[in-house]
Amino acid sequence: MTTIGEMGEDALIAAFAPRLPVTDSEILGPGDDAAVLAVDGDLVVSSDILMEDRHFRMDWSGPEDVGWRAAMQNLADIDAMGAVPTALQVTLAAPPSLDADWVLRFADGLREACEPHGVGVIGGDLSGAREVSVCVTVLGETHGTEPVTRDDALPGQVVAVSAPLGAAAAGYVQLTEGRRIDEETIGLFLRPRPRIGAGLEAALHGATALMDISDGLLRDAARIARRSEVGIAIRAADVPVHEGARFAALELQIDPRPWALTGGEDHHMLAVFPRGSAVPAGWTVIGETTDAFAGVRVDGEVPEDLGWDHFGG
Amino acid sequence: MTTIGEMGEDALIAAFAPRLPVTDSEILGPGDDAAVLAVDGDLVVSSDILMEDRHFRMDWSGPEDVGWRAAMQNLADIDAMGAVPTALQVTLAAPPSLDADWVLRFADGLREACEPHGVGVIGGDLSGAREVSVCVTVLGETHGTEPVTRDDALPGQVVAVSAPLGAAAAGYVQLTEGRRIDEETIGLFLRPRPRIGAGLEAALHGATALMDISDGLLRDAARIARRSEVGIAIRAADVPVHEGARFAALELQIDPRPWALTGGEDHHMLAVFPRGSAVPAGWTVIGETTDAFAGVRVDGEVPEDLGWDHFGG
Repeated sequence: MTTIGEMGEDALIAAFAPRLPVTDSEILGPGDDAAVLAVDGDLVVSSDILMEDRHFRMDWSGPEDVGWRAAMQNLADIDAMGAVPTALQVTLAAPPSLDADWVLRFADGLREACEPHGVGVIGGDLSGAREVSVCVTVLGETHGTEPVTRDDALPGQVVAVSAPLGAAAAGYVQLTEGRRIDEETIGLFLRPRPRIGAGLEAALHGATALMDISDGLLRDAARIARRSEVGIAIRAADVPVHEGARFAALELQIDPRPWALTGGEDHHMLAVFPRGSAVPAGWTVIGETTDAFAGVRVDGEVPEDLGWDHFGG
Repeated sequence: MTTIGEMGEDALIAAFAPRLPVTDSEILGPGDDAAVLAVDGDLVVSSDILMEDRHFRMDWSGPEDVGWRAAMQNLADIDAMGAVPTALQVTLAAPPSLDADWVLRFADGLREACEPHGVGVIGGDLSGAREVSVCVTVLGETHGTEPVTRDDALPGQVVAVSAPLGAAAAGYVQLTEGRRIDEETIGLFLRPRPRIGAGLEAALHGATALMDISDGLLRDAARIARRSEVGIAIRAADVPVHEGARFAALELQIDPRPWALTGGEDHHMLAVFPRGSAVPAGWTVIGETTDAFAGVRVDGEVPEDLGWDHFGG
């Protein structure tokens, strides 16, 4: 084993860079003071950090998984504006004792997640640190549609999600409890697989508010409710629960619904559409917006637990 | 004192966001899945991370200093392409026990560094962590000139720097040894002040290679030498040393020249110009490019120590 401290920064970059995905929009890639990217339309930009022992565990996630997740949750943020992702900046901080092979396999995970979408890694930074963290900034562009924010939902509209929820939470619980019941949901926790393009689809169907579910359905719905100044009424029975999550819950003799309501990291889309007929095929209507109250209610009740807070606990 | 863990993510963002600088290019700012930025010309993008106890010490740098430095070294990276910075994405990772006031004053430092240049913070992320880190991605745009890389220096050209060097290293040594001899250099270590625009100036004067000096003159010059496939011959006596650094060295009875040659973090510009007459006023010629050898030589010798390696020691 060669550590990254032994290898040194320049040699590490030289080995790492060729494994990264490339994009056709790249004019100048990694290795200079800055990268240069062609942008068509307005630039859409978002950042997400993954921190060891907070967002991933080195004993659960392989380096390819960490790279995959870092890329995918950022791609979902661009899709969640109804825009198209084109490139990532990736910054890795890690202890000098980290195996250099971990970094190369991390690049493989980035590539596996990005290549099907034509997204490239065009730059980033490396630093020593006590714990491993990955900070990604994703760049995308609007393609003829206006970006869809969280702000413009109106009362009396329809709330829908792009896919069944709760898989990542089910995977997390199985790993926590050391019981591998359903490999698919464990895999989806380690490598979320939102359908990139679902957000653009929502935009093209006239969505008035749109976001990806990263911190749990209820917490994220509350964000749309606050920004759009509407109430969101969710019917718990209508929230689709991932099949593997239902199976794992059955084995564990627990209710899978809280995974779908408050579990995060599935990165599927939550959208508000002007009417039911606007909801794209394959999406599931889970409730309505209203002016009768503020915030989120589930079956008429204010939920006790909204889900994940990044500095809490 | 209120900690960020007590305050919670949403309340922290609500207090933090209004203190951030804004840019005229912003179409949609922080608070959604992504920000939206108008881009004129090609997009120029770079990322830099600042890590507690590696790039700054909490007992030396106040929160405003950390914000300032995080912004300024990223602005310098865009300037180092001969481009114009417009916006930052800023990701802060910190222990839940951190004083929320630290985060607000950190935003003030970002604003102080960015506002004179019309640069805004348009988004980012927050995370818990064991140590404080700041990951910035800076976005800029080309304004009529081609980006100047490290690749196109030719033999027989002139190497120059935009300002005297060694101030940050002098400040660092004074803080390390607990001797405050020269407050200006201590201040420049905590808040580097490269002249943003010097890089664009070099581009307009026909620079064939350009970068900002972040890891020390020799290590960074070696990068231009490698990428351009030239040798760089530096005359040590011609490398301008910051006046405060010379004063501090005199008091410490040491030679200040190693600070200017291998000390990093001044973020002044290093450029290669086609001929001496192209060097802008105020810049200092420190050597030449050559095809007689590869790499960097100082007064004809291969230097023993190039400077800072991010995973070394």
